[in-house]
Amino acid sequence: MTEVKKQEFVKEITKMDDDFAQWYTDIVLKAELADYAPVKGAMVIRPYGYAIWENIVAWEDAKFKESGHQAAYFPLLIPEHLLQKEIDHFEGFAPEVLWVTHNGDEELQERLMVRPTSETIICPMFSKWVQSYRDLPLLIYQWNNVVRWEKTTRPFLRTSEFLWHEGHTVHADEEDAERECKLILEYYREFVEEHMAIPLRLGVKTEKEKFAGGLRTYTIEAMMRDGKSLQAGTSHNLGQNFTEMFDIKFLDRDGKHKLAWTTSWATTTRLIGAMVMVHGDDRGLVVPPRIAPIQMVILPVAANKPEVLEKANELKAMLAKSFKVKLDDDTSKSAGFKFNYWEMKGVPVRIEIGPRDIEKNQVMVYRRDTHEKFPVAMENLVEELGKLLENIQDTLYKRAFEFRESRTWVSHSYDELKESFEKETGYAKVMLCDDQDCEDKIKNETGISTRCIPFEQEDLGYDTCIICGKKTDRMMLMGKSY
Amino acid sequence: MTEVKKQEFVKEITKMDDDFAQWYTDIVLKAELADYAPVKGAMVIRPYGYAIWENIVAWEDAKFKESGHQAAYFPLLIPEHLLQKEIDHFEGFAPEVLWVTHNGDEELQERLMVRPTSETIICPMFSKWVQSYRDLPLLIYQWNNVVRWEKTTRPFLRTSEFLWHEGHTVHADEEDAERECKLILEYYREFVEEHMAIPLRLGVKTEKEKFAGGLRTYTIEAMMRDGKSLQAGTSHNLGQNFTEMFDIKFLDRDGKHKLAWTTSWATTTRLIGAMVMVHGDDRGLVVPPRIAPIQMVILPVAANKPEVLEKANELKAMLAKSFKVKLDDDTSKSAGFKFNYWEMKGVPVRIEIGPRDIEKNQVMVYRRDTHEKFPVAMENLVEELGKLLENIQDTLYKRAFEFRESRTWVSHSYDELKESFEKETGYAKVMLCDDQDCEDKIKNETGISTRCIPFEQEDLGYDTCIICGKKTDRMMLMGKSY
Repeated sequence: MTEVKKQEFVKEITKMDDDFAQWYTDIVLKAELADYAPVKGAMVIRPYGYAIWENIVAWEDAKFKESGHQAAYFPLLIPEHLLQKEIDHFEGFAPEVLWVTHNGDEELQERLMVRPTSETIICPMFSKWVQSYRDLPLLIYQWNNVVRWEKTTRPFLRTSEFLWHEGHTVHADEEDAERECKLILEYYREFVEEHMAIPLRLGVKTEKEKFAGGLRTYTIEAMMRDGKSLQAGTSHNLGQNFTEMFDIKFLDRDGKHKLAWTTSWATTTRLIGAMVMVHGDDRGLVVPPRIAPIQMVILPVAANKPEVLEKANELKAMLAKSFKVKLDDDTSKSAGFKFNYWEMKGVPVRIEIGPRDIEKNQVMVYRRDTHEKFPVAMENLVEELGKLLENIQDTLYKRAFEFRESRTWVSHSYDELKESFEKETGYAKVMLCDDQDCEDKIKNETGISTRCIPFEQEDLGYDTCIICGKKTDRMMLMGKSY
Repeated sequence: MTEVKKQEFVKEITKMDDDFAQWYTDIVLKAELADYAPVKGAMVIRPYGYAIWENIVAWEDAKFKESGHQAAYFPLLIPEHLLQKEIDHFEGFAPEVLWVTHNGDEELQERLMVRPTSETIICPMFSKWVQSYRDLPLLIYQWNNVVRWEKTTRPFLRTSEFLWHEGHTVHADEEDAERECKLILEYYREFVEEHMAIPLRLGVKTEKEKFAGGLRTYTIEAMMRDGKSLQAGTSHNLGQNFTEMFDIKFLDRDGKHKLAWTTSWATTTRLIGAMVMVHGDDRGLVVPPRIAPIQMVILPVAANKPEVLEKANELKAMLAKSFKVKLDDDTSKSAGFKFNYWEMKGVPVRIEIGPRDIEKNQVMVYRRDTHEKFPVAMENLVEELGKLLENIQDTLYKRAFEFRESRTWVSHSYDELKESFEKETGYAKVMLCDDQDCEDKIKNETGISTRCIPFEQEDLGYDTCIICGKKTDRMMLMGKSY
């Protein structure tokens, strides 16, 4: 019966090349990252998925605090009258907004919006708290849930409710607001590249793609294994739009009252979806060692033998001092089942220990990323495993980087752009002027959108807009987006 | 101008004896724990209040994980059809429930309840996840926000939205569910008594006061400085009510399908309100050292002198290795203002360092709880401060314990009970039978309710119900509740 189960288990995963979307969903469900909830477009984040989220939160939270940001908590429900202040911003969210209208059987006097983001409830507080230049910069963030009633949803990538942090800061001038946006974007880059092993393109969003009601949006863009781009985090310089609407002024050193500047920024549970789509393979999830809830699993071979189990327990106690380690000593399941199970879960390293290994004073080590298996002597084990985890981390990053580069090209004309995307999805670098009609034309006709104006501008060998032919110095990264 | 500000600052706090409720609100606002939000009955938890919450979360979260509980996340919005399954439970919350009815301009096909608690959305998932005795116990919890649209609200104590953890567990039998409830209650006791320095009465709620839809509710009850009782945490044995409604069954070792048992449990941001009301005084908040975001503040006397500021910075660097320490080197405010400010914030220890102290190689230490001030030699400072923090922690607990005991008495009759509460509010121990009419009569006529049937039953010298005169062995703790 165990053997049958094992086969079922493996059979149930769609192959990546057969149906990428189904492969993704299969992994999310089978690796127990999330489950469908009995609510439209909502998911339950299961313990294994939530443990990855906890690792993301822990790193980011420490980084925010390190640079003087303070955590706080603002209300979930926003009264309608506050929204009428920031029309541009609100209109960006209006179709996806849920409204609370009743309390028990009674109709509320004023409708309440379930927050899709919190600018409109935070700004009135900032207006009260910010009085003098001494109060600035005011650096606040909160970890919470937000709701956007999307038509099409997919676990982690686009769900009606998701978890995130949202940073909200107030500054004396544009320079300081810009400094903040860049600082946060660099935190995001550091975390996503160095801890999630996902290579990024950093840049600015166009006017069309920027945050509703803001001045300028910075983004980190990551390429998934289907060649599509995922916006993995953003920081927005909101300019003085919100401070004007909500009257956030401060008395400056020169005795004058001045309008402040604000920023907002976020990364979400979406990052978990990115991790699946960048590193996963046909055997399941692959979790980068630095964010893995379980970095290595010990599987005793012939676990019913007391001496093997004893040795495995000793091993666990030893390794637990340096790593996040789990011992799977369940004797009701076959070794084959357990191999598949922990591969599906994406645990970076599997350690097998059996009677022959004990004799030889070694263990067998299997790495999830390259599927290689080799013996390691007991005496060097902690050191070797430490190196191995780092090597896996690097390998995952390098592999993702090489994949992205293999899917990135320069297009010299609109025809070239269209033809390239007919062949495969990826990133095209093009010259594109700042006339929104040119951007609109491409998106409307092909679905290819501007991902960002990369910070690292390159000389593509030509200097005219691929649509209108006007001279331009704006190099754009184009792609299809999640 | 600074002096005027200082006086204003002090004047704005109502005295505890003049108006306890106003004193409480003044402290919450002036110590910057929370602020009123522009939403009915909602508050903003400000960074200082949130930092205390983070300390509560960190301790509890580690404890839950230590005993094998796993964090997860379930949806905020619960479709109406799920509620029709558990009528008893739902009716307990119905009047306070908020309903989402619209998405943008469109009416939703099914109304969604904003969760007041999550049993009805978690149980359908448990029904899916629990198949075999091997899946049990299933120990899940989540940190989240819930909404109960209360008529009368007060910051932290009763707000339309609050933060909490809610534990939800599934067990094979009653014994294991009981074990879980008791374990969690013991965690709550340990945290609230030993870290928040709040003495507790532990016991069982009566049928009238228990959780709607549950079998048995365990509670920790704390007495505030006005003699009223606050339910500071609860764990519920939900029996088989929810497992029957939501079909949570498992295949047991004996090959039979059996109905499981569930529990749920929680503590909330309310704990912060309890801390204010148990330890605060007319100078402001008093935060117990073990949960204090700032354990000591260094105030340089004559901070404009470079040698003083230098010494203060050295001191901070030294103390920061062992304690949570803050240096207030703001020279724009007077020493008097800063003394008041940090007293209001309830920081357990203030350290003053000035030219004369430097000469004598000492600092002046002030303890917030007893208002004593004394010199401590630099050479023993870390050790002495460590002892001092422990002493403050103990003193706060002892003081609260003595206060509670001074407000606890035995009532031998209904008349005695009524008379005692006319004099002052506190805990009365009485004998009360399990006929709900007896309990109802007291509550309806006097507002005095049963707080719990204490685990530690005492011989009160009589053995008949104070209402009906029937023989009973049930010793009850009565009081007025928050």
